Parts: sequence; C-alpha cells; structure tokens
Amino acid sequence: MNALSRRGFLGALAGAAGTGVLAGGAGGVALERARDGDATVAFDGEHQAGIATPVQGHLHFAAFDVTTTSRAELAGLLRDWTVAARAMCAGRPVGEDGAVDGSPLAPPEDTGEALDAGAGRLTLTVGLGPSLFDGRFGLADRRPPALVDLPAFPGEALDPARCGGDLAVQACADDPQVAVHAIRNLTRIAHGRAAIRWAQLGYGRAASTSPDQPTPRNLFGFKDGTANPGGDDAATLAEHVWVQPDDAAQQHPGAAWMTGGSYLVARRIAMVVETWDRTSLQEQEQVIGRTKGAGAPLGGTHERDEVDEVDPAALPASSHVRLAHPSRHGGARMLRRGFNYVDGSDGLGHLDAGLFFLAYQRDPRHAFVPVQQTLAAQDAMNEYVRHTGSSIWAVPPGTSPEGFWAEGLLTGAG
Amino acid sequence: MNALSRRGFLGALAGAAGTGVLAGGAGGVALERARDGDATVAFDGEHQAGIATPVQGHLHFAAFDVTTTSRAELAGLLRDWTVAARAMCAGRPVGEDGAVDGSPLAPPEDTGEALDAGAGRLTLTVGLGPSLFDGRFGLADRRPPALVDLPAFPGEALDPARCGGDLAVQACADDPQVAVHAIRNLTRIAHGRAAIRWAQLGYGRAASTSPDQPTPRNLFGFKDGTANPGGDDAATLAEHVWVQPDDAAQQHPGAAWMTGGSYLVARRIAMVVETWDRTSLQEQEQVIGRTKGAGAPLGGTHERDEVDEVDPAALPASSHVRLAHPSRHGGARMLRRGFNYVDGSDGLGHLDAGLFFLAYQRDPRHAFVPVQQTLAAQDAMNEYVRHTGSSIWAVPPGTSPEGFWAEGLLTGAG
Repeated sequence: MNALSRRGFLGALAGAAGTGVLAGGAGGVALERARDGDATVAFDGEHQAGIATPVQGHLHFAAFDVTTTSRAELAGLLRDWTVAARAMCAGRPVGEDGAVDGSPLAPPEDTGEALDAGAGRLTLTVGLGPSLFDGRFGLADRRPPALVDLPAFPGEALDPARCGGDLAVQACADDPQVAVHAIRNLTRIAHGRAAIRWAQLGYGRAASTSPDQPTPRNLFGFKDGTANPGGDDAATLAEHVWVQPDDAAQQHPGAAWMTGGSYLVARRIAMVVETWDRTSLQEQEQVIGRTKGAGAPLGGTHERDEVDEVDPAALPASSHVRLAHPSRHGGARMLRRGFNYVDGSDGLGHLDAGLFFLAYQRDPRHAFVPVQQTLAAQDAMNEYVRHTGSSIWAVPPGTSPEGFWAEGLLTGAG
Repeated sequence: MNALSRRGFLGALAGAAGTGVLAGGAGGVALERARDGDATVAFDGEHQAGIATPVQGHLHFAAFDVTTTSRAELAGLLRDWTVAARAMCAGRPVGEDGAVDGSPLAPPEDTGEALDAGAGRLTLTVGLGPSLFDGRFGLADRRPPALVDLPAFPGEALDPARCGGDLAVQACADDPQVAVHAIRNLTRIAHGRAAIRWAQLGYGRAASTSPDQPTPRNLFGFKDGTANPGGDDAATLAEHVWVQPDDAAQQHPGAAWMTGGSYLVARRIAMVVETWDRTSLQEQEQVIGRTKGAGAPLGGTHERDEVDEVDPAALPASSHVRLAHPSRHGGARMLRRGFNYVDGSDGLGHLDAGLFFLAYQRDPRHAFVPVQQTLAAQDAMNEYVRHTGSSIWAVPPGTSPEGFWAEGLLTGAG
C-alpha cells in the first residue's frame, strides 16, 4: 500500500474537478471542455441540473422501489444521495475516504471505476413516482395534482418490469463509465432502504441546444429534436417546463414543495427497425413529415422551417410532426431529452432498439397526456413503434448547497 | 423533396470522410482526430483493422447464424458485407444511393442514422465460428486445427443464447451510433442469408496502447490492461497475435487461408458487483494483485512494475495478475480488447454488468485455453465473476482493396 501517493492522487483529482463549472447554456464551450473529462455542471441551483443542461453523450436511468416504510429513513436516503451526488457531479469520489484512502479492512466508500475519469459533465436528477404518495410515508396529502397516473393509451405494449417505481435517478454524462458509476454508487447507498426496480441505458449526441451542432438522428435515421426548446431559452422554459407558484396545481394544499420543479414522463419506445428499413423513402418521409436528408418539413426547404407554415397539402395529416405540433395542443411544448438505446438483440434475429423518450414539462395533463392521446390514435408512426415502458415523475426543484433532494416535501410544512 | 441539396449533403459528407486515414498505432493523434468524428481507420491491409487499432469508445458485437445452405450465397454475403463495411469505415453510407438519394419509391439503401456522424474511427472485424465448418458449406476440411471447440471450464454459467454462432462482426467506433449503424446495416444486408444470434454492446475508454492516457478501469474499479501489448508493437503482435505461415497449425492441408489472421475468444464475464462492493479494500487488492489507486502490483510501487519482479511474499499466489502472468504459461500473451458492459438491471435489484472480454491470439491452444484453465481452477476472483457467454472465432487476414472477407477460405485452393 502507499497511502501517501494515494492521497496525492485523490488530491490532484479533486483539484482538477473544480476547474470548469459550466452554466446550462454554454453550448460549444461545454462540449469542448467535456472532452477533457473535467468539465462540471453545477449541482445546486433553483432547478435541478440535467433538465436544461445541454444533453450529454450517455444516460443511465434507474427506477427504485423504496423498501423501508420509515419516512425518516426515506428522508435519510434522499439526504445521503444528495451528499454523494453533489460530490460525484463535482468529480469527487463518494465518501470521505474514496476508493483507496480508507481502512484496508473496510470496503471502499467509492467503487472506484470512475477515479480518473473526471466529472464528465455528470448531472444527477431525482424524480418521485406516484406510488411514493400511496400512504406508506404519510405523504398522500402532498401528492401534487399534476402528478397523475398516466392513462392507458391505445396500442401500447407495456412490460410491467419496465414501468413505475417510487424514485428515479437520471444520470447523464459524456463518459458512460461516469454515469454508470453514479447509479451504482447511489444504488449501493440505498441498500436496505431502496432497490433498483428497472434501469435503462442510452446514448445521445451533441444536443440541438447548441446551434453549431447538427440535430441528432434517431434510429429511424431522421433528425429528432429540431423544434425542441433551447436549454438557455429561459422564457420558454418558464412557460412550459418549470412549475410556477401561481399554477392552479400549486394552489393544492401541500403542493408548494413542487414550485421550481418539473414533471418527467419516461417512455421506452421500441422501434421495429427491420420493418421500417423495408419501407420506401417516400413512406418514411410521409410518416415523419420531414425529409430524411435535411430534415425540412415536407413542403418546406430548411430544417427549421415552421411546420405550421409549410404548404399543408404537402404535409400528411397523419404525419408525426404535424400531429405533435404545439398548434394542435393549445401551444403545449415539452423539453425532450431522449436517448437512443440498443439492448442487444431480441432473440428473434432483430435488434432490440429504439428511443428512451424523456420529456420534462410544467403539467403533464396539458402536455404529454393530450399529445400522446392524439399520437396513439392517429400517428402514422404507430406501425413502427411499440411503447414498452412507461413512468411519470415529480421532479422537485433544485437544492441549496446545504439542502437535499425533496427536502421541501419531506421536511416542509407542505 | 430536394434531390440537389441532398446530393450536396452527401458529397460534403464523402469529402469530409476522406481526410483522416489513420494507421493503427497513431495513439494520441488518433484520439484527437476521433473527436471530430471524421477520423477513419484504413479498412484494407495485411491484417483486419479492429485488432491492433487503438481501442475505440464503443463496441457493438454481433454473432450470426447462417440461414442459407449455399456456399455461393455465403460467399456472396461476405462479399456484400465487405463492400458495405469498406464504405462505412470510410464514413460513406451503404450502397450507391445512400439514405436519401435513391428512388422515393424504394427503401433507402442506408438506414441513415449515422449520416452526419462521420466515420468515428469505425472498424469492422469479421470472425468465423467452428460451426461454419460443420459440413453445410463443404468447408470441413478447411477448419484450422487452432479453431478448437473451447473446453468446459469449472464454474462457468454459460447461457446458450449468448454462445457460439457461424459468423461474428466486431464493430468498434468512437460514436455508439456509428457502431450500431454498422451492425444494423450488415444485419439488413444479411437478410435471407444470416440472422443475428446474439449481440453485445459495451463501452471502453482511451486505450492503454496510448501511453499518455490512463489505463482504463474495469467495473471492479481497478486498472485493467496495464500489461497489454501495444498495438504498435509489431514484434510482440507477430509473436503472439498474428498467425504465421510456419505455425504448426498452418501446415494442416486447407489452413493456409488463415495466415495473417488471428483467433478471437469472446467471453461475457458478469461481475457480482454488489458482493464485490461489500469486500474490504485489502481483499479486493489481494484478489486482483494490484493496488486500487495506482494499479501497482502488490509489493511494487508503480503501475508498470513487472509482476514477476516484485516481492513474491506480497503478491498472493491466488491473485488474478499472478495466475494470468505469461511466466505461468510459457510466455503466452494475448491482445485483450475488452469493453465494460451494463445491460440494465437483473430484475433482482442488481446491476447486470461486467466485462465483455475480447482477446486476440495466435493459437488459443497455447493462450486462452491454458490460461483460463488455470484461472478457473485457482483465481481468487472467481467468487466475484460468472462467465455467462462464450465463443471462439477464426479471424481471417485483411483484405486487398478489391478482395473480400474470408476470400481465401471461400475461393482459394485451401
């Protein structure tokens, strides 16, 4: 053993980690720094990080069942998680001693696989599922009205093993090892209090929030996210993503803890890529409503041409972009943060692949629910997708440097 | 539609793709270029790319069952695959028309999701399984003696759905979308001739072949690959990785087509990380035989201290590095190219995670087989790993610019 050199090693690590705190909208600069592995995204703030943050390259999303029935233990878990998350997002290991500096006779406090990886723009974002408010923890009267149980949608093929959960953590980072390390260590900290119910990994590309980066393509081969709000568009986020104190839902007694938060809908959308790949280019473009190359709406010329300003005769009424457009839904918009996934093969000679759809919104009753009701009924894309997983989460507001996740729910007056 | 702008788009793409052909050992330069997405690794050469090439960030490995019984169709598949692979590794789409420039009434030739991603240092490496030589294609007398059926090893827990196969493709790239796109398009081209049997995704980090990059860590949190041969160490590769014309196995009638090739053993090694994480630092270090921080062999000081030169009293006889050391196996070495994997959760509250071990070698009878027999019997690490998938592949030599994968096997005189 060599405790001195270890301490030097960890000290150098912590020093490097502090060099590059980035605001949400830094765009190209953030991407450049991320490549060094040492870029950090601020953990504390009015809102949780990982929502308006420019999308990172990798996702590890985990849903947990709470296994204790003690509200004090639940609060302790969220406090312990926050301390660990704050450290990891700063590029530091979990615990006081990290992976290599504690007693040789005890398990290391940090599992160590991200030791020399830096922070990698790690964000950790917590969500609370409807089941957390079922009465086990005396929280039934604090369930916000906007945290609805999602209705059944026509055609969905949900696997219960990929649905629901009491708690969720969304880990995003530019290095997959950093995201995996974070979920693993939070899972370990939860031992005896919560256990993983399901998890999903995915990968992304440079976000469309950075205008000098091309819009990422989904596994249908089409640009996806062209009309997504920018993470630095504060006015749009205030209108469509962040829960506001004067929201009707916030007048509910006990819901005040959600002000500054958001609601997340997560859907695992399997794509039947083999069928899609046998479909003509024209059919593909009519299903999506955009050209495959440039991503322009049919009837338009450029990717960012407005869908509701092109020649309506050129854009099929059943196309995905037309049905999902805000003008069809009272102006409703969501901040989408989806990741492509490939979970190997399905055992039948096909790829098990698709989109892990993540959408943040101010009130799902006026955003995801009506949009998906329209899409499930009419979208030409339905022939090529199957929704196999579903969950909804109340995402509490951000933390002060001394605070912890969902503190307002678990300790506040309601 | 806008055929002109599409052609311009594709032309720009093809132009960008040609700018950065890299030799195998380019190290830091390769990594720098890779970040631009346009770096390409030469496809044709004496050996297949993807073996000595510095390790990329992402893996999509697929095993296929051949579904035709026609040798001509098998040869046609390998020819079609090679043409497509050569295009994709140069950053070009599959086919003449790509994803957006063909007839609108036909399915696009390329699925399109990697259209603006560049080549991303993509390598595609083909392997032939023992079952390909079972007589269906008249190849039984060309099975090289070194392509053994792997023996059963004590303690393995193999899932037949993760073992074997007639053909394999290892896709490695710095962008996961590029690797996924390649396997998807090769799978599509194989339709009616071969189908995916199993697939595995994984991720890596900057390779230890680049001395200015830290050695990657596995999911036990330890540096893994310290003693791996460098991809630019031609003498070591000639001795331990590439099949030589004077090898005893090459004197077998019909085996000449393997000269310049290699043998690949792929093992899916699940790690019981929850148990590992409850183990003391001292126990972890004694199991591995290295310190967790610096990665020095126990009894040594620095990561690259030689395992067989440290104080033997400090290095347990059952430690992984001691048992696997070449000095224990007549000097046998392998070129390891493993990737960490996380396949979500196992349904029991644990991560489904581990190492997808890939090792290239000149003759598995003198490398993987005896090493694994020793490890399976004595390795202290066995308590924390389960081998759940296994396969062995004859990896034919590289191609000339007009040639195709396994041409020597399928068309040569033997």
